[in-house]
Amino acid sequence: MENKVNESLLEGRNPVIEALRAGKPIDKLYILDGANDGPIMTIKREAKKRDIYIKYVAKDRLDKMSVTGTHQGVIAVSAAYEYSDMEDIFALAEKRGEAPFVFILDGIEDPHNLGAIIRSANLAGAHGVIIPKDRAVGLTGTVARTSAGAINYTPVVRVTNISKTIEELKNRGMWFVCADMGGESMYDIDMTGSIGLVIGNEGDGVSRLVKTKCDYIASIPMKGDIDSLNASVAAGVMAFEVLRQRLNK
Amino acid sequence: MENKVNESLLEGRNPVIEALRAGKPIDKLYILDGANDGPIMTIKREAKKRDIYIKYVAKDRLDKMSVTGTHQGVIAVSAAYEYSDMEDIFALAEKRGEAPFVFILDGIEDPHNLGAIIRSANLAGAHGVIIPKDRAVGLTGTVARTSAGAINYTPVVRVTNISKTIEELKNRGMWFVCADMGGESMYDIDMTGSIGLVIGNEGDGVSRLVKTKCDYIASIPMKGDIDSLNASVAAGVMAFEVLRQRLNK
Repeated sequence: MENKVNESLLEGRNPVIEALRAGKPIDKLYILDGANDGPIMTIKREAKKRDIYIKYVAKDRLDKMSVTGTHQGVIAVSAAYEYSDMEDIFALAEKRGEAPFVFILDGIEDPHNLGAIIRSANLAGAHGVIIPKDRAVGLTGTVARTSAGAINYTPVVRVTNISKTIEELKNRGMWFVCADMGGESMYDIDMTGSIGLVIGNEGDGVSRLVKTKCDYIASIPMKGDIDSLNASVAAGVMAFEVLRQRLNK
Repeated sequence: MENKVNESLLEGRNPVIEALRAGKPIDKLYILDGANDGPIMTIKREAKKRDIYIKYVAKDRLDKMSVTGTHQGVIAVSAAYEYSDMEDIFALAEKRGEAPFVFILDGIEDPHNLGAIIRSANLAGAHGVIIPKDRAVGLTGTVARTSAGAINYTPVVRVTNISKTIEELKNRGMWFVCADMGGESMYDIDMTGSIGLVIGNEGDGVSRLVKTKCDYIASIPMKGDIDSLNASVAAGVMAFEVLRQRLNK
């Protein structure tokens, strides 16, 4: 990824163990697949204690990520910012006396996109952004910078399983609109209620399982010669349609 | 700029002279201010013949840009794609039997933003994108990649002076909406006619002179705690409001 923020990577066994023990905010651990010597086992144990996501990868992946060239089989990516709890989202909506409006990002990988989406979420009056732990970018330095400060106001919650989260939120009265091609025009869907806007991965869109959990498939009416909008632009266009409907209500 | 594409930079006198003579697509030349020896004069002459934009800069600027460390007072930035003529935009609108709809970008610097805007322009049914020669990113490899193919369909025209271009286009019956804060709600402005949507620079917005040339200042109604949307998101939200109005007409 071209926008790797060097200072947010921590490489090598001892530095990673120290950071874990010091309770430093770590977003993700990349560990050499199959490594199981003492220090690596310590790292795994400490990571488990703090519920840090571990990704097991091949050596060439680590070599590619490495800035120092001495990763010793482990690279930690520090979280630049802390994640919020789901209750923070509901608390914010309640404080403002509004029906909850959240973004569910089903696998955004580009930190510029995640930052821009958090920025749009803030300005469209959304109460939070939900992202998955796996196969998605977390709150890195680039994301924080690209969010232009929005990260300080808009709760970002990380969950293990997007479809399960949608089910839980449905039980709390929310319903879900999935942004995808071939759906209903977003202008024809009433989005003024308690709503989750589901945005897919840059390349693959919303995953099949997540899509089946949604109440509506909504599309942005468009022309043109190419396939799809940039993920953060699509999210922004939909978010401001939600806001337009809410302001007109 | 963090997304400088190395392979699109050419450094040193001989490589640049050879590229010019071979007719390779060059976007911009950065030449050491005050340099006027033989090879540099040759480069200037060749650049003039092909109407390549030259920017005279201080040594530390070149040092900063340089990847090889041996720029010898000249760095060429290759254009990944060719620019179109203004008439291509009008021809496309006429072919489709539509009122012209163009984007005018007053100084977009980030290639990801330019690429995303060209992508949105294509999908919102715009007939072209106009960018300035100076103080803005051109059609680099990153822009082409980020445009997701839109660059092959949507004409991108480069002009010397944005305000003068707006005046010329006004004489052809177009009128201009400038995206900025504190203007009228974009939902209240009829944008179905021959329209130019003016989007400002990432940090500074639309420049004062350009703003005075516009017929309307349009704002996206928003909430939130921070200042402004990402430039490509703002451009996208506005573009799809133009399309919505045109489709409803």
